[in-house]
Amino acid sequence: MFYHDRELQYKVRVDKPNPQFAKLLQQAIGGIEGEIRVCLQFLFQAWNSRGPMKYRDMLLNTGTEEISHIEMLATAVCLNLEGSSSVLKDEMAASNPMISAVMGGKDPRHILSAGLGAMASDANGVPFNGSWVVSSGNLAADMHANVMAEATGRVLATRLYEMTDDSGMKDMLSFLIARDTMHQNQWLAVLEELGPGTHPIPNTFSQEKENQTVNYTFFTTNIDRQDPTMARGRWSEGPSIDGKGTFRQEPAAPIGGIPNLGPPDKETHAQRE
Amino acid sequence: MFYHDRELQYKVRVDKPNPQFAKLLQQAIGGIEGEIRVCLQFLFQAWNSRGPMKYRDMLLNTGTEEISHIEMLATAVCLNLEGSSSVLKDEMAASNPMISAVMGGKDPRHILSAGLGAMASDANGVPFNGSWVVSSGNLAADMHANVMAEATGRVLATRLYEMTDDSGMKDMLSFLIARDTMHQNQWLAVLEELGPGTHPIPNTFSQEKENQTVNYTFFTTNIDRQDPTMARGRWSEGPSIDGKGTFRQEPAAPIGGIPNLGPPDKETHAQRE
Amino acid sequence: MFYHDRELQYKVRVDKPNPQFAKLLQQAIGGIEGEIRVCLQFLFQAWNSRGPMKYRDMLLNTGTEEISHIEMLATAVCLNLEGSSSVLKDEMAASNPMISAVMGGKDPRHILSAGLGAMASDANGVPFNGSWVVSSGNLAADMHANVMAEATGRVLATRLYEMTDDSGMKDMLSFLIARDTMHQNQWLAVLEELGPGTHPIPNTFSQEKENQTVNYTFFTTNIDRQDPTMARGRWSEGPSIDGKGTFRQEPAAPIGGIPNLGPPDKETHAQRE
Amino acid sequence: MFYHDRELQYKVRVDKPNPQFAKLLQQAIGGIEGEIRVCLQFLFQAWNSRGPMKYRDMLLNTGTEEISHIEMLATAVCLNLEGSSSVLKDEMAASNPMISAVMGGKDPRHILSAGLGAMASDANGVPFNGSWVVSSGNLAADMHANVMAEATGRVLATRLYEMTDDSGMKDMLSFLIARDTMHQNQWLAVLEELGPGTHPIPNTFSQEKENQTVNYTFFTTNIDRQDPTMARGRWSEGPSIDGKGTFRQEPAAPIGGIPNLGPPDKETHAQRE
Amino acid sequence: MFYHDRELQYKVRVDKPNPQFAKLLQQAIGGIEGEIRVCLQFLFQAWNSRGPMKYRDMLLNTGTEEISHIEMLATAVCLNLEGSSSVLKDEMAASNPMISAVMGGKDPRHILSAGLGAMASDANGVPFNGSWVVSSGNLAADMHANVMAEATGRVLATRLYEMTDDSGMKDMLSFLIARDTMHQNQWLAVLEELGPGTHPIPNTFSQEKENQTVNYTFFTTNIDRQDPTMARGRWSEGPSIDGKGTFRQEPAAPIGGIPNLGPPDKETHAQRE
Amino acid sequence: MFYHDRELQYKVRVDKPNPQFAKLLQQAIGGIEGEIRVCLQFLFQAWNSRGPMKYRDMLLNTGTEEISHIEMLATAVCLNLEGSSSVLKDEMAASNPMISAVMGGKDPRHILSAGLGAMASDANGVPFNGSWVVSSGNLAADMHANVMAEATGRVLATRLYEMTDDSGMKDMLSFLIARDTMHQNQWLAVLEELGPGTHPIPNTFSQEKENQTVNYTFFTTNIDRQDPTMARGRWSEGPSIDGKGTFRQEPAAPIGGIPNLGPPDKETHAQRE
Ligand SMILES: [Ca+2]
Ligand SMILES: [Ca+2]
Ligand SMILES: [Ca+2]
Ligand SMILES: [Ca+2]
Ligand SMILES: [Ca+2]
Ligand SMILES: [Ca+2]
Repeated sequence: MFYHDRELQYKVRVDKPNPQFAKLLQQAIGGIEGEIRVCLQFLFQAWNSRGPMKYRDMLLNTGTEEISHIEMLATAVCLNLEGSSSVLKDEMAASNPMISAVMGGKDPRHILSAGLGAMASDANGVPFNGSWVVSSGNLAADMHANVMAEATGRVLATRLYEMTDDSGMKDMLSFLIARDTMHQNQWLAVLEELGPGTHPIPNTFSQEKENQTVNYTFFTTNIDRQDPTMARGRWSEGPSIDGKGTFRQEPAAPIGGIPNLGPPDKETHAQRE
Repeated sequence: MFYHDRELQYKVRVDKPNPQFAKLLQQAIGGIEGEIRVCLQFLFQAWNSRGPMKYRDMLLNTGTEEISHIEMLATAVCLNLEGSSSVLKDEMAASNPMISAVMGGKDPRHILSAGLGAMASDANGVPFNGSWVVSSGNLAADMHANVMAEATGRVLATRLYEMTDDSGMKDMLSFLIARDTMHQNQWLAVLEELGPGTHPIPNTFSQEKENQTVNYTFFTTNIDRQDPTMARGRWSEGPSIDGKGTFRQEPAAPIGGIPNLGPPDKETHAQRE
Repeated sequence: MFYHDRELQYKVRVDKPNPQFAKLLQQAIGGIEGEIRVCLQFLFQAWNSRGPMKYRDMLLNTGTEEISHIEMLATAVCLNLEGSSSVLKDEMAASNPMISAVMGGKDPRHILSAGLGAMASDANGVPFNGSWVVSSGNLAADMHANVMAEATGRVLATRLYEMTDDSGMKDMLSFLIARDTMHQNQWLAVLEELGPGTHPIPNTFSQEKENQTVNYTFFTTNIDRQDPTMARGRWSEGPSIDGKGTFRQEPAAPIGGIPNLGPPDKETHAQRE
Repeated sequence: MFYHDRELQYKVRVDKPNPQFAKLLQQAIGGIEGEIRVCLQFLFQAWNSRGPMKYRDMLLNTGTEEISHIEMLATAVCLNLEGSSSVLKDEMAASNPMISAVMGGKDPRHILSAGLGAMASDANGVPFNGSWVVSSGNLAADMHANVMAEATGRVLATRLYEMTDDSGMKDMLSFLIARDTMHQNQWLAVLEELGPGTHPIPNTFSQEKENQTVNYTFFTTNIDRQDPTMARGRWSEGPSIDGKGTFRQEPAAPIGGIPNLGPPDKETHAQRE
Repeated sequence: MFYHDRELQYKVRVDKPNPQFAKLLQQAIGGIEGEIRVCLQFLFQAWNSRGPMKYRDMLLNTGTEEISHIEMLATAVCLNLEGSSSVLKDEMAASNPMISAVMGGKDPRHILSAGLGAMASDANGVPFNGSWVVSSGNLAADMHANVMAEATGRVLATRLYEMTDDSGMKDMLSFLIARDTMHQNQWLAVLEELGPGTHPIPNTFSQEKENQTVNYTFFTTNIDRQDPTMARGRWSEGPSIDGKGTFRQEPAAPIGGIPNLGPPDKETHAQRE
Repeated sequence: MFYHDRELQYKVRVDKPNPQFAKLLQQAIGGIEGEIRVCLQFLFQAWNSRGPMKYRDMLLNTGTEEISHIEMLATAVCLNLEGSSSVLKDEMAASNPMISAVMGGKDPRHILSAGLGAMASDANGVPFNGSWVVSSGNLAADMHANVMAEATGRVLATRLYEMTDDSGMKDMLSFLIARDTMHQNQWLAVLEELGPGTHPIPNTFSQEKENQTVNYTFFTTNIDRQDPTMARGRWSEGPSIDGKGTFRQEPAAPIGGIPNLGPPDKETHAQRE
């Protein structure tokens, strides 16, 4: 069950409102790298958790923290939009095309639909999509999904940090970036705790059932076979990362033959040719 | 540039067509864990690659292989649908409700829209969505996105394996599962090659700029503070995984104050209250 | 800021797991009438609130309660799916078409993607969409959006109630339906508090600027003009509900003339005809 | 059945084409607050109507009128785009970054995809989505959905009115705003006609079946319990709006216990831990 | 401007309600091959028309007719759902898994969200999407989009015809199929009227500006070059269809060199490697 | 099966990077008229092909070529974005609103999400959608879908050509436009090869089953019947294009009567009125 108080987790201050930055911040709210995604992802993983209770607990704690991050960013969007409506009106109405251009880089729905508030969408106004919420029922797969979400999330936050000189915004982002540092470490910590036998995921599927000739082979599809050094790396020779095989490299070659489908079904009304 | 031949990478055989299994296979084609996603993801990462050429090359090879996987699965869908139209017609027309129920578990668009062919959508008929294609411009973040895609992809494939007794389908899935094993190892191999300084991602953002008091703290939002053992684990004490800090656990507490937005802008027509 | 504890707001009990009912419950989680929508809607309205603080507070309280409702429903989905995997496998594998039909009515992604857990999508597997989150910056408009969400939400919950005989599920729904009763009343209470001058929304736009000849006219587009009683009701005569005009009924007639667009722009490459 | 003539319902005049305003107008065509939504919503409610014929008739009339509103707005978009292609070409080609910036605030697909015409999408180019079309099979719920659509629709139209000084556009919007005034009144008139026993919706579900201890309670989730005046209002004491209960306020407290899910199903391949 | 009357364009009769067929019919309402798409497509093409008035007029007539087709199909969905709720309740509640399976093949949202009415979505419950509405500003391109829509639409309708034995439904579909026959002919008639110089589309772009060495070449990407008869047909030799070139066949070969992107931008925070 | 080499099909050169043009190019990658769509469309048609092998072969060749087009355009996006990050940072940070406006017309996710790379979305950042991939199981319908895709695709490419003065970009587009010329001809060549009996599509549905009174009638829905010359053209008289009927024009008139639905089902909880 969930509770709240009236305060923000960390201070949100905007020295100079900037509706263009408000638009950029939307990516961190409703984008695929954003806080709604991680919030719902960690909470659904907690609610669906069938493993040791400590993982459910941990996920609940961090999922709940992410709601507070959405709140901070929504507040930042609101503060960046303050005063922008009157300005925009003047710009739209002005006859000088150069002046009217100032609307560029703003999200028109911040005024039209949200009345200078935040929305559940990304920096292009594309709505948040529930398909991004990954809760697979496999703890290791979920942890990798979480590392990925926090990695792209921290990349996003550092880019936002570069794109503003507002000291309030930089301070808020400095907090969120630090939390992303922690959360990246946190999900990796679970993977470390799960130990070296984690891979390949899922480790409960007997590897004897998988095709034994291709499970540690790096296939090259490049038709220029002359240069054997291309695409060579840690993945093309030596022991595999999961310690269960040996990498090798081979040119990909078809062994499946030409597919042979039956004729069209009469009742689907293919064309008579 | 890209080429093809007429053969499949691996044999696709269906002993007994099963339109319900055709529906399930769609998840591996057009679902978020599916082959269109990894195909486009690896190819976009290759095309956008600004780092050492060997990563571009490697990504091109594996992205190209994934096209062949889509092809195999599309062929499997077609073969599983053979003969299903006539049967379905009889079922729909039958007056016995029990018989008409047989349509359950099939994708009606396999007949209505695709004429017994495969589609670019998931097991519920929800179309493939380009937002799932992650190419962040940060190699480590991309590799984590790839590990995640292959981890959930292999989980999906093993579940499909469990849900069929068709030996042809089991053989095909055994091949695809083996490739997922390799690909999980492959992306992890790049991360190993990048070395221990990879984290936190991106490692080019100076950590001095991030808030130093919260970057290695596991915050608990649980209001029941009495049980200090809850949610304890590798993530709550000891050195952080990136080796750059020390984990600690603290109850989350607000330090941001109550947000204070300005009054509504007159021209956005808030309500007079 | 947000907090949690480990318990559910209300007991979730499933006497007899039913994966088909799990699918139906998804509508109350990730559907347009569902709990993710109201949760985010009330929270965004709170975070964007620029009016009297008491509305922000109220919205925060109820938005936070809705997270607990998502949690209850996710738990209900999980419990309804227990044991369904093995059964499904047997069904898929069985050669008897009647038996294999049993998969009908289940969401295949509950197994394939979520490993017997809940997802952020609706009863057809269509993902939650952030466009449903309405926060307009106008309090009265938002309250109507909330009444609508709770009205369709309570309709959904009563239909779910009818479709199960599981006493645990009926008990949980009885709780959620009661909360919807309260919440419908709650948003209407705000509208009552706002008083009789609320309409038309927004009431800060001077009605003198709107076209005075059509603002209280019910236009009929029916070309059969012979029966003047058709479509008559409270809306076709008498004082308008906002008390600011008088309803009347008139056949719609065009006064806009035939639109006259310019020729195609050369550089857009329309067809030479 | 439906008919048309060649004229517009009301005159659409643009004194000075403005492609940026064309982009803003798209919100009123294909956005969630727009005319395609209300058009389809009223028509589907009419077509699905199983109640007294007069409601079907009324809905058909107003749904049909909304098609004419889409037509007016599409015409307005076309007129605002006239001449914009050549200007844009020059801007794109210019070497001066300031000049090239003029493209800001325009929808590039107005040229690229529509050749200076209107599209079925919103002000950010996000396509119209059929999920917004609410027809619940419950008349009161539908009327609230309609009030909400017209309330957010009128808010949108008044904001568009503020953002232009084009007298033709102001005149057209003055007409559409007036129609929204009427339509808000119209749906409220149906609710008045349905009478005081309408709530809670649906009123055909016996309230005896709902949980009697929480159906008129305003739950506070705020953990700062010290200030009892927070979030107090019409909704926290006194008779409920539906006249069937008495509001009271209580701190939310969990009575559901800790959820206890079964272990993962072997065949879903959770992780061995 | 638009009008209506109370009658249907053609009789809609259902002899034996079938909720599974109701689900299939949704494809013809809200699917990509369905009537909402053609309706909006023809109307937007009319409203955006900048060519001879007769095309605008024709498009308005047929676009308006399509609204009547949506109406017919929505009515057919409603009639097919009659009585299905009580049956479904019994099925869901029944303890016999075989009986409960009867829900398979029905759209649960027909009950849960629409109360036994039609929805703006396809046969899998995926909402109508405005991106399908093509109005390109080029008449010939639009006509091809219309031929395509009517061709896939008629294919869909004939498949629906095969999947029912209800004489009422067959009669309704017989009408809609006939209209599709007319509409296919209609759009082709415009193309014939435009004459032989229509291609390539757009014919206002000077072909001198296109690359002269590849504009009539069929490239083969097949790496098996040994069999020159593969993929031979009308498209590989002889005069081109537009009469402006000569088809030839050539193996595709790269002439673009290896792409050479610059190093990552420091401020986008790529990884230090 | 699929292969690649390291080179581009055709040279991609950008003389002067322009991030605004990068945004426009996205329409040709991930838009409905773009290369991902045609690539997947042709490949799915090939994989689903149940007709003569030569069509499968041809589709495979051209579908494979389209991957190379995505690659070229992704490269063009990357090159157009070079150097744009630093500039943008300065613009965002500048206090002069005119300067900050320069961000207008750029896709913020090119920096925030892709780190100056290409994405699988359109010119407004709306993700590619799998619903656009048409593979109907009917060869003629598919060919029309392909003509339509190439026609709107060539229109798009010529508009992009007009919007740049960069000689490298013009050269690349000149190649892609030439390929669209070929591909339009190619799909028309298949239709010519199929011969005159192709229409109406599908030609395997006996036309005797379609309603014989309306299959060649152009219905006018215009209520102004006075001017018989409106909307006259090749489609209103003379032999039909398929040679199987004679066009005629008639005012549309309803023959379907007023629909009569049953009362609401008790268990769906319609409103008591
Ligand atoms: Ca966060
Ligand atoms: Ca694969
Ligand atoms: Ca609720
Ligand atoms: Ca309207
Ligand atoms: Ca039609
Ligand atoms: Ca192409």
